[in-house]
Amino acid sequence: MKSLRVGLCGVGNVGGVVLKNLISSSSLLELQGGVRFELIQVGARKGKSAVPFEGINVTKDLLDVARNREVDVLVEVIGGTDFAYELVTEAIKEGKHVVTANKALLATHGNELFSLAKENKVEIGFEASVAGGTPVIKALREGLVANKVKWFAGILNGTSNYILTEMESNKSSFNTALKKAQELGLAESDPSLDINGTDAAQKAIILAALAFHVPFDFSFVNFEGIEDIELEDIKYAKELGYSIKHIAHGKLNNSLVSINAFPTLVNNKTLLSQVGKEMNALEIYSESVGSTVYYGPGAGPEPTASAVIADLVDIAKGGWDLDINPNSDNKLEVSDPDTVSRYFRLQVKDETGVIAKISSVFADKKISIEALIQHEAKSKEDLESIPIVIVSGEISQSASDNLKEELENFPEVIPGIKNFRIHSNKE
Amino acid sequence: MKSLRVGLCGVGNVGGVVLKNLISSSSLLELQGGVRFELIQVGARKGKSAVPFEGINVTKDLLDVARNREVDVLVEVIGGTDFAYELVTEAIKEGKHVVTANKALLATHGNELFSLAKENKVEIGFEASVAGGTPVIKALREGLVANKVKWFAGILNGTSNYILTEMESNKSSFNTALKKAQELGLAESDPSLDINGTDAAQKAIILAALAFHVPFDFSFVNFEGIEDIELEDIKYAKELGYSIKHIAHGKLNNSLVSINAFPTLVNNKTLLSQVGKEMNALEIYSESVGSTVYYGPGAGPEPTASAVIADLVDIAKGGWDLDINPNSDNKLEVSDPDTVSRYFRLQVKDETGVIAKISSVFADKKISIEALIQHEAKSKEDLESIPIVIVSGEISQSASDNLKEELENFPEVIPGIKNFRIHSNKE
Repeated sequence: MKSLRVGLCGVGNVGGVVLKNLISSSSLLELQGGVRFELIQVGARKGKSAVPFEGINVTKDLLDVARNREVDVLVEVIGGTDFAYELVTEAIKEGKHVVTANKALLATHGNELFSLAKENKVEIGFEASVAGGTPVIKALREGLVANKVKWFAGILNGTSNYILTEMESNKSSFNTALKKAQELGLAESDPSLDINGTDAAQKAIILAALAFHVPFDFSFVNFEGIEDIELEDIKYAKELGYSIKHIAHGKLNNSLVSINAFPTLVNNKTLLSQVGKEMNALEIYSESVGSTVYYGPGAGPEPTASAVIADLVDIAKGGWDLDINPNSDNKLEVSDPDTVSRYFRLQVKDETGVIAKISSVFADKKISIEALIQHEAKSKEDLESIPIVIVSGEISQSASDNLKEELENFPEVIPGIKNFRIHSNKE
Repeated sequence: MKSLRVGLCGVGNVGGVVLKNLISSSSLLELQGGVRFELIQVGARKGKSAVPFEGINVTKDLLDVARNREVDVLVEVIGGTDFAYELVTEAIKEGKHVVTANKALLATHGNELFSLAKENKVEIGFEASVAGGTPVIKALREGLVANKVKWFAGILNGTSNYILTEMESNKSSFNTALKKAQELGLAESDPSLDINGTDAAQKAIILAALAFHVPFDFSFVNFEGIEDIELEDIKYAKELGYSIKHIAHGKLNNSLVSINAFPTLVNNKTLLSQVGKEMNALEIYSESVGSTVYYGPGAGPEPTASAVIADLVDIAKGGWDLDINPNSDNKLEVSDPDTVSRYFRLQVKDETGVIAKISSVFADKKISIEALIQHEAKSKEDLESIPIVIVSGEISQSASDNLKEELENFPEVIPGIKNFRIHSNKE
């Protein structure tokens, strides 16, 4: 039976479960994985008091673990990008494999780390960095190895998806839904990285590096969070046959790769639209196989630890032996040439001729109007300004920005037009 | 770069695409897989005329390939269980790895083949045998390696799912839907193995062997096909909030494993119910991670070839080094102790007191009635016999059989009660 000597850095939510499983699930891992793990050392800043097991070598200096000659693989579950980078770099230089759950680390330092790993002939496992316990990295790297990926679209931030699901199902406001997520431990007390789209965007660059063989370069990801979505938008989307999801999207157009993460309308007939609560899902469209979808819990200590251990088993068996960024012809680009249909919600003063004015802007720009909703005014407030919702034909981001600017120039249109993409299932 | 010398047996639908991809996608496979393939020999019963490429060593005697000393791995895509068994056995004895898409072969001879492979220290890759291009074997074997699987439920036969989707969406009869599937090449001219449940049941035993570490023993699988589902049932299911799907199901109850494949009502709020057309999906419920779902095309030459090549890449990198049937405490059992809610449709003579009679049988047996539908008679035909649909509480297969028998004893009840399981999402 293969064996692997593990050094674990971090005994927080995820690290605690990894520790517990390495100790208490050893017979399951031997049976199913054919691997015996030996826990050599645990790095915990608080020392022994943070480790609820006897007879374990605990150090407060995490770099001890990176330098421990008995350790084959260092598990980094401390989070953050500064010390984690130092720790992982040190471990790799010492010839150790690394398993990490840290998407921020990879999105920021992925290129340096994978080059260093290649130089030192060690592996970096990062299944846990995207979609938690759902093996999407494995699917992309191995299951679909014979396919050229054309695009992916994923619900990768559980907190955002929980909030959007609450808004849609219970007609909660954004703030009420966020508060509920916080009460349930699904959002942190400072939820900004989740709800402003950063977390999903970091995961998108990791998927893109793997799918399209481009560098990890977070500066190429265009993203926005879900903070601007109002209940009104969710209701109109539903009326049009869509749910609003936060979608991380990567696409190969010829050799140009665009990556973004935006609130997006997803057709209610698709699986992605059915992904509720804090669940994650990733759709990968590739040549040969076409569309495959992977669904599961995207976070939480148990699922994340499951992914960390799966990486450890793979490394014990020889790893993946793969250049993460081999030479390919694909290039990242910042401007997104992709054209998609878009949703616009305008608040306009209810004056005669306003629809004509608005629709003439679309006509002048040769942008088609696929759907338009204007309901009868129902209340006094409505009489001051009424919402108009328009679904446009396929236009680029820049065309959409221009359109929005021009519409907001009309005195009848109240500034702050809502504008979201509509997910396309085409190739 | 790793390299692997391949012998390909079979150049039909799937084999033809494997052949084409090994030849024309070599740079993609080198880039993404880090593996260089060398095609040593092709076994084609029709000889060179069946191989549309120049310069390839073709033999009409497929056993030549199994004995070819230059071949590291034999790809078996000829189908069938007799000669395929001989061919694969010979290859393994000759120290060659095997990659197969043949579920029937594994369901029938899996135990012998995996023992022989273990003895000869070679690998058997079988990703293509279940769910085509969707990497469900990989997810189960590797992605979820740190999890104890509690149950799985899968839509694994694309032909059946296409027919059921047609019946539900277009209100087609079973026969019309089958004919359309045949016209589209989604059903064979003799569709029996697909529509009588055999194909899904074979896939279920493969998944069960992997998930629960039990032998491949097809005699333990209880199964029925979709032939008895009438449009009427699909309409009633919809009224109750369900779709009817053909579900292959494996479950671990303590150490007892039950496996079956039956038409099953699936709640419309679940992802499985949304899987339409010829697509496949597998839900795996495991400790730690909980529920994960894998969706994609379950058949077709391109997706199947994609899975075959993914196995070849894995083998080039050292394989999985895994006992497929290690010693575990789990035992297969034929009787299914699992209790689930069930759907019953009875045709009864519309006489006073019939509902009372029927419901008293449920009451006497202490089986709850969760829902009951009896619509007003609308036509003359209805006046002779009317349908009554009942959703029962959770009962076992044998309790259900007894109930059905007793109900059919009433002179008011017309024999041939329809009776389907309802999928439960519980642990």
